[in-house]
Amino acid sequence: MLHLDKVTRIALLYDFYGPLLTGKQQSFLELYYEQDLSLGEIAEESGVSRQAVYDLLKRTEHILEGYEAKLGLVVKHQTEQQKLAQALRLVEDYRRERREGQIDQINSILKEIVDLENN
Amino acid sequence: MLHLDKVTRIALLYDFYGPLLTGKQQSFLELYYEQDLSLGEIAEESGVSRQAVYDLLKRTEHILEGYEAKLGLVVKHQTEQQKLAQALRLVEDYRRERREGQIDQINSILKEIVDLENN
Repeated sequence: MLHLDKVTRIALLYDFYGPLLTGKQQSFLELYYEQDLSLGEIAEESGVSRQAVYDLLKRTEHILEGYEAKLGLVVKHQTEQQKLAQALRLVEDYRRERREGQIDQINSILKEIVDLENN
Repeated sequence: MLHLDKVTRIALLYDFYGPLLTGKQQSFLELYYEQDLSLGEIAEESGVSRQAVYDLLKRTEHILEGYEAKLGLVVKHQTEQQKLAQALRLVEDYRRERREGQIDQINSILKEIVDLENN
């Protein structure tokens, strides 16, 4: 049984640091967290023991947390997203009262930054 | 003789990925690129050959470029900074014409994002 908070956390870490993992680490993590296969199913599919799958997943999660401890991209991203959302709300408030070309442009740019962050 | 473009590039990569390097890699890179010591001086100070210092620096630069190839934080950062600067210019233009509490707030938030990016 997967805990949603944990799944969300691993998914977020994987978004940021996935490219730094080996192919095998990426593949097991995706099978377990994205495709929701059980340890036993992954073991069977890849011809290793259930314990080996478990160990590799634990080690991979530890590696991802290690990257976050060093680079902090997830926490930085979340802070930025909060600030950007706040800025966008303010711009929307403003726009309800007046129309102004420059304000439209700011709005577009801020949305581009948000998209950029999410790629 | 150091090329300024190269120094800037390494400094930028080091800002983003430095925490992922070993202590020795960090230390040699700082001595060479920040404190501007020669290969010979670093060799003497750390009791290894000039060639060993050269090899470690080359390998470290290669590691940094490898991280950038995988995560692209530098190029993403530069794009964001451009967009934020553009947004800030538009806000400043607007403010020259009218005063508005909300616009001031947007301005502050955007500046916070810029600071955040630079930490």
